[in-house]
Amino acid sequence: MNGLEDPKGRPPVGKAPPRTPKSSADQDAPWPARRVRQALIAEVFGTFLLTSVSAAALLLAHQGLLPEVTAFTLAPALVVIAMIYTLGDVSGAHINPVVTLAFALRGAFPWRLVGPYWAAQFAGSVTAALLSVTFGHLPPATERVSPVGAGLLDAGCTAVLLAVVLATAHRNAKLSSTAGLAVGLTVALGHFVSNPVSGVAMNPAKVFGPALVSGKLTEAWPHLLGPVIGVVAGLLLTRAMRGPLNESEADAAQGTGGED
Amino acid sequence: MNGLEDPKGRPPVGKAPPRTPKSSADQDAPWPARRVRQALIAEVFGTFLLTSVSAAALLLAHQGLLPEVTAFTLAPALVVIAMIYTLGDVSGAHINPVVTLAFALRGAFPWRLVGPYWAAQFAGSVTAALLSVTFGHLPPATERVSPVGAGLLDAGCTAVLLAVVLATAHRNAKLSSTAGLAVGLTVALGHFVSNPVSGVAMNPAKVFGPALVSGKLTEAWPHLLGPVIGVVAGLLLTRAMRGPLNESEADAAQGTGGED
Amino acid sequence: MNGLEDPKGRPPVGKAPPRTPKSSADQDAPWPARRVRQALIAEVFGTFLLTSVSAAALLLAHQGLLPEVTAFTLAPALVVIAMIYTLGDVSGAHINPVVTLAFALRGAFPWRLVGPYWAAQFAGSVTAALLSVTFGHLPPATERVSPVGAGLLDAGCTAVLLAVVLATAHRNAKLSSTAGLAVGLTVALGHFVSNPVSGVAMNPAKVFGPALVSGKLTEAWPHLLGPVIGVVAGLLLTRAMRGPLNESEADAAQGTGGED
Amino acid sequence: MNGLEDPKGRPPVGKAPPRTPKSSADQDAPWPARRVRQALIAEVFGTFLLTSVSAAALLLAHQGLLPEVTAFTLAPALVVIAMIYTLGDVSGAHINPVVTLAFALRGAFPWRLVGPYWAAQFAGSVTAALLSVTFGHLPPATERVSPVGAGLLDAGCTAVLLAVVLATAHRNAKLSSTAGLAVGLTVALGHFVSNPVSGVAMNPAKVFGPALVSGKLTEAWPHLLGPVIGVVAGLLLTRAMRGPLNESEADAAQGTGGED
Repeated sequence: MNGLEDPKGRPPVGKAPPRTPKSSADQDAPWPARRVRQALIAEVFGTFLLTSVSAAALLLAHQGLLPEVTAFTLAPALVVIAMIYTLGDVSGAHINPVVTLAFALRGAFPWRLVGPYWAAQFAGSVTAALLSVTFGHLPPATERVSPVGAGLLDAGCTAVLLAVVLATAHRNAKLSSTAGLAVGLTVALGHFVSNPVSGVAMNPAKVFGPALVSGKLTEAWPHLLGPVIGVVAGLLLTRAMRGPLNESEADAAQGTGGED
Repeated sequence: MNGLEDPKGRPPVGKAPPRTPKSSADQDAPWPARRVRQALIAEVFGTFLLTSVSAAALLLAHQGLLPEVTAFTLAPALVVIAMIYTLGDVSGAHINPVVTLAFALRGAFPWRLVGPYWAAQFAGSVTAALLSVTFGHLPPATERVSPVGAGLLDAGCTAVLLAVVLATAHRNAKLSSTAGLAVGLTVALGHFVSNPVSGVAMNPAKVFGPALVSGKLTEAWPHLLGPVIGVVAGLLLTRAMRGPLNESEADAAQGTGGED
Repeated sequence: MNGLEDPKGRPPVGKAPPRTPKSSADQDAPWPARRVRQALIAEVFGTFLLTSVSAAALLLAHQGLLPEVTAFTLAPALVVIAMIYTLGDVSGAHINPVVTLAFALRGAFPWRLVGPYWAAQFAGSVTAALLSVTFGHLPPATERVSPVGAGLLDAGCTAVLLAVVLATAHRNAKLSSTAGLAVGLTVALGHFVSNPVSGVAMNPAKVFGPALVSGKLTEAWPHLLGPVIGVVAGLLLTRAMRGPLNESEADAAQGTGGED
Repeated sequence: MNGLEDPKGRPPVGKAPPRTPKSSADQDAPWPARRVRQALIAEVFGTFLLTSVSAAALLLAHQGLLPEVTAFTLAPALVVIAMIYTLGDVSGAHINPVVTLAFALRGAFPWRLVGPYWAAQFAGSVTAALLSVTFGHLPPATERVSPVGAGLLDAGCTAVLLAVVLATAHRNAKLSSTAGLAVGLTVALGHFVSNPVSGVAMNPAKVFGPALVSGKLTEAWPHLLGPVIGVVAGLLLTRAMRGPLNESEADAAQGTGGED
């Protein structure tokens, strides 16, 4: 191409502009200040909703107004599905600090945004807990297993969730519109098989707010640390099955895939 | 480009014709009289079905023939999903006055059609209530919270529903075929966590008919006004996360997106 | 085009061959003998599965081995979803005589195949009933309403189902891969709100086999005739909202859309 | 067209290059050593998860911590859906020896990989059983029918599952992103209607591990052999309705369809 063809440097008609391969997710291009602000609002909102709806469902179940299994399985799964469709293109719809961490470790999400995302997620959770506690004592999760067992169970469920999240991100260019259902149903699965014996949340932010507000932060350590161990397992599994990052993954993690 | 290349003014091969940006949804082009009539029939039908199925499910639950939580969660969610797939390209499948209002306030739906849509939605609801009441006394919703609390709860659930509706409309060009599931599951979520303590409907039309027919219009004010407050909250949230209208939103609101 | 451009009569490179508009669904082109045979096998299989699974679920519910509402709601809905994905491109996955009738009346399905399809559907149902009866007395449906009421209820549920089926067929070119979920969930909805008071099936074939085998064909008239009235209502509604047939509808009805 | 136009024999602009029909799935092209290793890891992981989650759900149900029907229906269905989205492009997400066998018999999967896949699937199951047994005695499945009846029931449910799996593979190019839901819901359906009377699994690998570990391999024969009979029925049905293999089927079976 030469200047005569197009003095403004645009590509010739009928050809897409050559897309520079992303060698790193830390490029500023897709993250102008306004997008960062919108993404953080989205993460606060999503985590607030996840925490408050889960707390509300448990409160209702404890009062006998909702079937218990349905409450702890459906409430978070439906919030996650709704939020992936609502926030997916704004923030990537992480609403979970270990998802943000896993994307950053994969190289799909810029490290300099990890701190702000975490802050937004924990802020959403604490706000939700402060609101929920005005409606009644937050019920403690049932723990029928030892703290170490609870932590390992949360690690295992989180590893599976991350394998699904990273796989659907990897395949995002193809799956985008149904990936939200797959992830949400995996959240349902994790709660369904673990919550009868432990307060597994696969999400430290969601656990942190209610634990802080009800003064039980110390007891909550298995569900704060377990998911971090799960990140390691989920990443190793993904690495073993898929190898390194592809571009679709970065697009899904940053909410830039599939939309324009 | 010059006239010699294409005397009819068509764009050169390989480029789509330049689409005039819609500066306003009030243009007449997509709304000839026949389409308006079809859309109003669709809105009457959808709101009639939503109101009558919800009333029937509650009647059956009160007689012990359906599990209560299932009745108030599944019935409206399944109607909303079915209607989005059935009416989406005819009327935009609002079947809810606050959805129509929210689209109009976003600039995605022509204001001159708001009145007719509302009339159709309320007519559908009243007709459904008149039919339902012939099968039995319409059961009053359980209200375990104060009227102000009920109104705020309905406002909160409606705000979340509108955030999902506006987001899936915004992303409609990409998500169209799964957006209906996301919206329907959000309806399920709202009913699931609120109906054990209040008659939250996230839809003033659905509340109006049964309240009018059973002479309880005065008591129904929290569920008639709450969703309107929810519209404001949902719009502010959407504006903060997404900024102004895009064309996909107008297409979804008017049922012109994704089909031809 | 002239012979010099392409002596074999093929269209010039880069242009799709001009598609002759289908003025009638009765053209033989998409229905060679082998395809008819495959479609009839598909209809026998699908209706057999729908009838036998529904009967099995009701038998289990009557023995207290399945929750009743779940049995009569989930079993047919899951079969319909599975069959739409399995038979959709073979026979159009009607597995219901009133669906075949509605498509024929819309002009989307050739009349000369209506008889064979009906024979296949009724044969599948009778075979399923003969198999089911070897496992136990087929339980009669609960009828808490008068026969006329039961017929009208079946008509109403069928009208809604047909509105959804015809709409998703009309929009098939766009929705194809999620249409099956929308239709299946509408089947779930119809059973959910009607089966606590009546044996509504929205499908005369499914009713016919078990009624014949258990010698109750006379009592079954509301569920054999009701759906036929529902066809009329569903077609009038579709005509009012959508106008005449489009090509996508014929493709969905004949299983020729979306695949090649 | 003549040779002068394109001496390299490439097709003219606007036409796809003629794709050599795969006469056999045994070509090495899509299966370099690294991909085989990744696929086997995926099959071990998927079958491990399916077996351990199903065992955990049954354990919880036996202890009264999960509703029984929900446990045996939802747990495997949700795992299958999650794994199809997670492993679909890595191994084809068989996680079931009869699925591998059926694809091989259709000519869609290379025979030389059948042994390794089976080994991976049985290894995953045995590992899961060894883990599960440390948490409690693995509960035996309820068997209310004779062993022959149980085997035939498992054969029938497997035949339907395979008809759905092969159909969605056949239509994979079109359906890919929703096929996972259709298959998962069919798994739910099979468990829903059969598990109240028999330990139907539609999957010999899933049965093998727990039976081996709890020393009940002899009693498990109906659920080890039944699905193999089901393969024959499912293949005959698919052959009768669809004829031979298409390319989309091989892509789905080998995880090469829809991604790049």
